[in-house]
Amino acid sequence: MFFSDPHLAYPVRVEKPNPVFAKMLQQAIGGIEGEMRVCLQYLFQAWGFRGPAKYRDMIYNTGTEEIGHIEMLATAVALNLEGAPTHMQEEAEAASPAVAAVLGGMNPRHYLSAGLAATAEDSQGNPFNGSWVVASGNLAADMYANVMAESTGRLLATRLWEMTDDPGMKDMLAFLIARDTMHQNQWLAVLEELDQPLPVPGDFPQGKEKQEFSYQFFVQSKVAPPADSRFAQGTSVDGKGQFQMVEAKPLGDVPQLAPAPNESHTTVMMKNPARIKK
Amino acid sequence: MFFSDPHLAYPVRVEKPNPVFAKMLQQAIGGIEGEMRVCLQYLFQAWGFRGPAKYRDMIYNTGTEEIGHIEMLATAVALNLEGAPTHMQEEAEAASPAVAAVLGGMNPRHYLSAGLAATAEDSQGNPFNGSWVVASGNLAADMYANVMAESTGRLLATRLWEMTDDPGMKDMLAFLIARDTMHQNQWLAVLEELDQPLPVPGDFPQGKEKQEFSYQFFVQSKVAPPADSRFAQGTSVDGKGQFQMVEAKPLGDVPQLAPAPNESHTTVMMKNPARIKK
Amino acid sequence: MFFSDPHLAYPVRVEKPNPVFAKMLQQAIGGIEGEMRVCLQYLFQAWGFRGPAKYRDMIYNTGTEEIGHIEMLATAVALNLEGAPTHMQEEAEAASPAVAAVLGGMNPRHYLSAGLAATAEDSQGNPFNGSWVVASGNLAADMYANVMAESTGRLLATRLWEMTDDPGMKDMLAFLIARDTMHQNQWLAVLEELDQPLPVPGDFPQGKEKQEFSYQFFVQSKVAPPADSRFAQGTSVDGKGQFQMVEAKPLGDVPQLAPAPNESHTTVMMKNPARIKK
Amino acid sequence: MFFSDPHLAYPVRVEKPNPVFAKMLQQAIGGIEGEMRVCLQYLFQAWGFRGPAKYRDMIYNTGTEEIGHIEMLATAVALNLEGAPTHMQEEAEAASPAVAAVLGGMNPRHYLSAGLAATAEDSQGNPFNGSWVVASGNLAADMYANVMAESTGRLLATRLWEMTDDPGMKDMLAFLIARDTMHQNQWLAVLEELDQPLPVPGDFPQGKEKQEFSYQFFVQSKVAPPADSRFAQGTSVDGKGQFQMVEAKPLGDVPQLAPAPNESHTTVMMKNPARIKK
Amino acid sequence: MFFSDPHLAYPVRVEKPNPVFAKMLQQAIGGIEGEMRVCLQYLFQAWGFRGPAKYRDMIYNTGTEEIGHIEMLATAVALNLEGAPTHMQEEAEAASPAVAAVLGGMNPRHYLSAGLAATAEDSQGNPFNGSWVVASGNLAADMYANVMAESTGRLLATRLWEMTDDPGMKDMLAFLIARDTMHQNQWLAVLEELDQPLPVPGDFPQGKEKQEFSYQFFVQSKVAPPADSRFAQGTSVDGKGQFQMVEAKPLGDVPQLAPAPNESHTTVMMKNPARIKK
Amino acid sequence: MFFSDPHLAYPVRVEKPNPVFAKMLQQAIGGIEGEMRVCLQYLFQAWGFRGPAKYRDMIYNTGTEEIGHIEMLATAVALNLEGAPTHMQEEAEAASPAVAAVLGGMNPRHYLSAGLAATAEDSQGNPFNGSWVVASGNLAADMYANVMAESTGRLLATRLWEMTDDPGMKDMLAFLIARDTMHQNQWLAVLEELDQPLPVPGDFPQGKEKQEFSYQFFVQSKVAPPADSRFAQGTSVDGKGQFQMVEAKPLGDVPQLAPAPNESHTTVMMKNPARIKK
Repeated sequence: MFFSDPHLAYPVRVEKPNPVFAKMLQQAIGGIEGEMRVCLQYLFQAWGFRGPAKYRDMIYNTGTEEIGHIEMLATAVALNLEGAPTHMQEEAEAASPAVAAVLGGMNPRHYLSAGLAATAEDSQGNPFNGSWVVASGNLAADMYANVMAESTGRLLATRLWEMTDDPGMKDMLAFLIARDTMHQNQWLAVLEELDQPLPVPGDFPQGKEKQEFSYQFFVQSKVAPPADSRFAQGTSVDGKGQFQMVEAKPLGDVPQLAPAPNESHTTVMMKNPARIKK
Repeated sequence: MFFSDPHLAYPVRVEKPNPVFAKMLQQAIGGIEGEMRVCLQYLFQAWGFRGPAKYRDMIYNTGTEEIGHIEMLATAVALNLEGAPTHMQEEAEAASPAVAAVLGGMNPRHYLSAGLAATAEDSQGNPFNGSWVVASGNLAADMYANVMAESTGRLLATRLWEMTDDPGMKDMLAFLIARDTMHQNQWLAVLEELDQPLPVPGDFPQGKEKQEFSYQFFVQSKVAPPADSRFAQGTSVDGKGQFQMVEAKPLGDVPQLAPAPNESHTTVMMKNPARIKK
Repeated sequence: MFFSDPHLAYPVRVEKPNPVFAKMLQQAIGGIEGEMRVCLQYLFQAWGFRGPAKYRDMIYNTGTEEIGHIEMLATAVALNLEGAPTHMQEEAEAASPAVAAVLGGMNPRHYLSAGLAATAEDSQGNPFNGSWVVASGNLAADMYANVMAESTGRLLATRLWEMTDDPGMKDMLAFLIARDTMHQNQWLAVLEELDQPLPVPGDFPQGKEKQEFSYQFFVQSKVAPPADSRFAQGTSVDGKGQFQMVEAKPLGDVPQLAPAPNESHTTVMMKNPARIKK
Repeated sequence: MFFSDPHLAYPVRVEKPNPVFAKMLQQAIGGIEGEMRVCLQYLFQAWGFRGPAKYRDMIYNTGTEEIGHIEMLATAVALNLEGAPTHMQEEAEAASPAVAAVLGGMNPRHYLSAGLAATAEDSQGNPFNGSWVVASGNLAADMYANVMAESTGRLLATRLWEMTDDPGMKDMLAFLIARDTMHQNQWLAVLEELDQPLPVPGDFPQGKEKQEFSYQFFVQSKVAPPADSRFAQGTSVDGKGQFQMVEAKPLGDVPQLAPAPNESHTTVMMKNPARIKK
Repeated sequence: MFFSDPHLAYPVRVEKPNPVFAKMLQQAIGGIEGEMRVCLQYLFQAWGFRGPAKYRDMIYNTGTEEIGHIEMLATAVALNLEGAPTHMQEEAEAASPAVAAVLGGMNPRHYLSAGLAATAEDSQGNPFNGSWVVASGNLAADMYANVMAESTGRLLATRLWEMTDDPGMKDMLAFLIARDTMHQNQWLAVLEELDQPLPVPGDFPQGKEKQEFSYQFFVQSKVAPPADSRFAQGTSVDGKGQFQMVEAKPLGDVPQLAPAPNESHTTVMMKNPARIKK
Repeated sequence: MFFSDPHLAYPVRVEKPNPVFAKMLQQAIGGIEGEMRVCLQYLFQAWGFRGPAKYRDMIYNTGTEEIGHIEMLATAVALNLEGAPTHMQEEAEAASPAVAAVLGGMNPRHYLSAGLAATAEDSQGNPFNGSWVVASGNLAADMYANVMAESTGRLLATRLWEMTDDPGMKDMLAFLIARDTMHQNQWLAVLEELDQPLPVPGDFPQGKEKQEFSYQFFVQSKVAPPADSRFAQGTSVDGKGQFQMVEAKPLGDVPQLAPAPNESHTTVMMKNPARIKK
C-alpha cells in the first residue's frame, strides 16, 4: 500500500525554461532507460517475489523511491515548458528562426495534448511500453536486469547533464546520478551477497546442457578477436570451464519441412510445372 | 557483410509436433528475452562501436552467430506445426476436447497469417519491438545489457526445456542453453578484462554528482531490509563509499507551476468561483 | 514523494488458484480499463496541474491509492498461478484435456517470462501503453476522462466478479468495485462543484466557432434516430442552443491538390499516356 | 454499408502552406484525441450494440459523419505540405536557418513515406492504435467515453486554432470545434434521457460491493484536500451515500506467496546460504 | 464526405455461434491482412493523391466499399459470441473440458472489454496499427501494395473459409473472397493500363543508379538457386538489362568510426589499459 | 547458419556529416519500407518455406544480402552523427539558430540512448515492428509482398537521394537503388516463371466463391471512374471474367444482435423507461 507527500524528494528548479530540453527529459521519464521502467520493474519484481523476504523488502523500498523520481522529472518538464511558443509565426519565421527552431523541435503533444506538461512517453514521443518491465522471478537475472537499467539510466542522466547549462537542472540531475550510483552498487551488492553460482539460472543442472559448447567462442566472421582475450582462453568466469576459440561450422542439416496441407492454400501452382526443375 | 549456409548451426528435430509448444517457442524468437533481440542488439552495438576494435570484432562475431539461432527456432516452430488442427469441429468439440484445446491454445496467426510457420512475434503474438535493442555506445553498460539478455534468455530456454518431453526439442534447447552459458561468461569476461571503474559510466567525474546520496539506502517503506545486509553497511561494491541505511524524507518543496497560458484553454472556469476555497 | 507499507490495502485471498483467471485479471492491471492506467493518469494530471491546489491535492491522493490496487491485483495473479501446469503432457493430453485447456488458455509469459507472477500487460498480453494516460491540463476534460476510466474500470471489475466463484477473488473485486463507485462519484462531484460551462473547454469563445453547426444532429445514414429524441430537439444540454436534426450534405468542393514535385517521384509515368482519358 | 461523395463536408483552404503545422494537424487525425479514434469508436459501438435501436442509429450516424472529418484533415495536411522543403542545404543552413528549422521540424514521413500527404499517425509519428477504440457494450460507459473523446478532441482543436493565423485553417477548425460542441451535447443528452442510475454499470447490485468503502475519500497523502469539498462531505452524486473523508490504512496482510516450483528455476541459490539471515 | 445505410452489404448469418472462431475472424478485421488496413490504405491513398482524377476516384470508391466489409465482419464476430461462456467453472472443468477449452481459447477482451462484440484488433489481440497503412503517393508502388494487401487478404479469407463448417460464415466468406478477386484484378488492371515503366518509381533516371549492380543476382549463401532460373539469366523483367548470377563479395572497407566525444560518456575506461591489445 | 566479414558490401562515405539526415536515414533502417523489414521478411519466408527448394534458396540468398544493407545504413547514420551538437546553447540560440534547428531536428535518442549511433527505429523514432514481416507461406502472395516492399523501398531511397548533396551518401544510395532494381525484377521474374494462376491464392476453387461479384467494380461514391477504364470493362486481368461497373447496393439486412446476457452488465437501465420510444 502506498502513501505520498506532495513535497518533492529533491528540489527541482529551472532558471531558463527550455521546451526542447523538456522533450529531451522525457527520455528519463518514459524511455526504456527511464524512471517509469525502473519503478515498475522493481515493483513488479517485489510483487511477484517468491524468495527470502529481505530481498523483497529491499526491492520494494527502492521501487517506492523511484515513483518520486518520475514526479521530479515530470515537474522539471512542466517547468521547462513555461513560456514555450504555441503559435506559428508565418511571417516572423524568417525574422525569428530561433523561435521556429524551438517550435519545430518541441514535443508537439506537450502543448497539444498536455497543455504544457509531461507525458508518459520518451523523447521521441513513443509511449511508455510495459514490455520493458523485466521481472523474471529469478533473483540473479533480475539483479542483472536492474544493474543494466541503472547503467543505461545513469548514462542517460549524465548525457542530459552535459546537455544543459541550467543550474537547477544540473543540480537535479546530479542528485539522480548519485541515486543511480547507489542503485548500481545495491544490485551488485546483492549479487555479491548471494554469491549465486553462474551461469544464471544457477539451479539448472549443467550436465543437461550440451557442455561441449558451453565455453567455446565461435568465430563466425572473417575477423576474429585476439586469441589471448580474456573470453577466448583460460578459465571461464564461472570457474567451470576453459574458454576456447573455435571456427564455427554447421552441425545440422538443411531443414526439411513437410509439404503444406491443402487448406493452407500455399501450394505452388503453375501453368507450366516443368519450369521448376528442382 | 554477411554470408549463409542453409545447413543449420545445430540439428533441429521434432518427434511429436505440438502446435501449442510452437506458440511457446515464439517467446525465444520474438520475445524480449529472445534471439531476435540479442542478434540485433549485438549487431547494432558493433555497427555503432567507437572503441577498441577487439571488442567490436567480438560482438560482431557473436551477433552473427545469433542469426542462426533465430533460424533454428523458426525451423522448430515450423516442425511443431506439422499436422496442426486447422478446422473448427463444431460437433466434435464435445467428443474431442483435446483438439479444441489445441486449436484454442495455438497462435492463430501460425495458420491464418503464416501457413504453419514461425512469425516475428513473441509467445503472445506481440510483434518483435525494436525498442528492446539496447546499444548505448558505452561498453560496460552494453556488457551488462548483454549479461542481462543472456540471463533472461537462458532462464527462458530452461523453462522451455522443462516444458517439453520431445527428445529433439530437449536436445536443441540443451544446445541453446550451452551457448547462453558461453555468452554470459563472455560478456562477464569483458567486464573483468576491462576492470572498468564502477559506477557506469566510469568516466563521469563523481565529484559532480550529489555524493552525499551516492551510497545511502533510502528506507521508503514501513518494512526495511535487515540493517546488516551487504547493501546497507560496509564498503560499497565500487569501493568508493560506505553503504548507509537512512530514512527517506523530502528535500524539496511542493512544486509551484505557473498558471497556464490562455491559449492552452486550461483555465478552470466556473459559474460560481466562490466554491473553490483554496 | 512516495512511501509504502508492504501490507495490502485490502485482503487478497485465492482459494482455488486458476491460471486462466490469472490471465483475465491482467486486463485490470495493464489493460486500457486497468489500474496502471488510472494510477498513472491521475499522477500525471496532478504533476502537471496548473489550477487551484485543492484539485491537485485530490487527484494526487487518489493517484496514490491506485498504486495499491495494482499491487493487490498483481498479488492476485501470483496466487492464481500457484500450481499452474508448466509441462506439455504429450500422451496425457487425450487423457487430461482439461489440463491441456488450461495450458493453452494461460498467458504463456506468466510462466516463461515471469516465473508465475504478474506482468505489465493486459489479458491478451499487450504491454501497458503510455498513450492511454490522458492528462490534458483542462480540469473538466480530465474529469470526464476519469469518469470514463472508472466507468469502464468498474464494468470490467463486475465482469471479472461474474466470471469467478472463488470467494477470495469475489471479495477482492467487491472492494475494487466499491472504490470505483467512490471514484466515479468523486470526479462527478468535481464537475458539479465547478459547474464548469459546457462545452469543454469552457473558456473558448463560442463566437469563434461556426455556431450554425453547433447544435445540429447530422443525419448521414438512411435510418435516422427518432426526431423527438432528447439530442434532436429542444434546448441543448449546455443551455446555449436548440437541437435540430438536419440532413447532412457536403459544403465543400472536391479537393484540388497541386501536382507533386519531381523529387517525390510520384509522377504517373506511362508508355501510352493517351490511356488516361481523364 | 457506406457511400461517399468526393465533395468535402466543409471547405478546406490553406493560404500559406506550413509543413510544421501539417505535423501538428496529424494529432487530430491519428492521435488519441483525433478523428480516427472517434470515428472507429462510434462505428464499433454501433456494430456491437445490443440495446434499443434508436441509440444504435444515433451512434451510427455520427460515426459516419466522422469519416468525413478525417478526410478534411487529411486534405488540410496535404495542402499544408505543398512547397515543403525536401532538400538538405548543407551550405545554406547557416544562411537560411528558417528552412533548416522547417526541415527539422517536419514529420519526415510526410515526404519520405507519403510523398507530401497525410499519414495514419499522430503529431509525433506514433501510428494510430486500435486500443484507443472504446466500445464496452454498456451505453452509459460508452457515452462517458464519447464525452471524454469529444472534450479532449475539442480542446485539441482549439489549441490548433490558436496555433495558426491561416484564415482557411482557422475556418476549418472553427467548423470542427462546432461539431465537437454538438457531439458533446449529444452524448450528454443521451445520458440525460437515459437518466441511467449511477454508478456505471447501473445494473450491478450494489449490495454485492463492499459498500462501507463506496463513498469514502481515502487520504493517502500528507496533504488532503479541504474537508468541505463537494467530494468529501454531503450526499454523493449518485444520491445513494454520504461522502466521507477518511485516513487510508492497510486492511490486508503482507502477501505470502508460495515458494516457486523447481521448474521455474527461480530458487535463490548461493554458495553460502548463511548470508541470508531473514 | 460519407453516408451510410444500416443494411449490410451482404447477409451475415451464424448458425452455430463459436467464440473461438470469433477470435479468428478478428484477423480479418484488425490484422495486417484485414479490412481496416485496406479500407484506410485506400482512403489515405485517395486523400493524398496528386495524379489523374480517374485513379483517385477509383481508389476512393473501393475504399468506401471496404468500410462495409469491416462492418460485416464486426457483425459476424458479435453473432459468433452469442452464448459464449463467461464463467470459470472450477469444479466443472474436469467434467466439461470443452467449455474450458472455449473459455481459454477465446479472446478475453471480447467479453471483458467489449461485452461480447468485436474489437479493433487482430486474432491475437494486437491493436490495429496505423503503420500498416501504405500510401506512398506513387501510383505504381501503391497498386503493388494493394495487390499485396488483397493477396494476403484473400489468402486469409480462404483459410478462415476452410476453418469453419457454419454455412452462414462460409457464405459470407465466399462473398469476401469474390470481392478480393475483383480487387486484385482491379489493381492489376491499373498497372496494365498505366504500362508504367519498371522499376518503381519509374521516373528516377536509371543513369543515376549504380547500374552495374542493377541486374545481378548476388549469391551470398553456400547454396545458390539454379543458374538457369528466370531471375538468374536472360532479359530482366523490366526489359532493360540482362540477369546475371554473381558471387557476392565486399566492395567496401571495414568502417572507421571516429572516437566518441567526451560528453557521450562512452570512453572505454580501465584500471589496466595494457590489457586491451587492440 | 550465418557468417560475416567486417568489410562493407559497398563503400559508405560521408563528407559533411548531417545529424538531421541521420534521422532521415533511419527510415531506411527501421521503417516499414526499410532494410530490417525486407531482411527479416525474406529470411522468415525462407525459414517457413514448404515449396520447391529453388525458391527457398533464392529468397535465402537475398535475405542474407539484406543484412549487409542494414549494416551499411547503420554505418552511414553513425558517420552522419560525427560532430553533432549535444549541448543546449541557451544564450547562443538567438545567435546560432542553425545549431538550434539541428538540435531540435535531430533524433534525440541518437545522442541520449545510443551515444551517436544508429537505432532500430524509423525516421520518427518508431521502433521496428515485427508485424511488418510478411511471410504467408503462399509464394505468389509473398512475391507480391516483396515487390511492394522493394517498390516502396526504392521510392524511399530515391527520395533520400534527392534530399542530400553529400557525394558519399548519393553514391551509397545509388548502389542501394540499383539493388532494389534487381530485387524488384527478381520477384517479378518468379511471378513470371511460376505463371501462377490469378487470383492469389491460385489453388482455391473459384466455384466456391460468390462468382457473380468476382469481376464487378462497385460504385459507392457520387463520382465513379470512367466506364471505359481497364478495370471497368473487358476481360479481367486473370482472364477468367468480364469487368463490369455496377451501382453498389445493400444485399443484407440491418443486423439483429441478441440482447446481451446479464453478466455483461450492458442492460440499458433507466429511471424512466418510457423515454425510449423505440
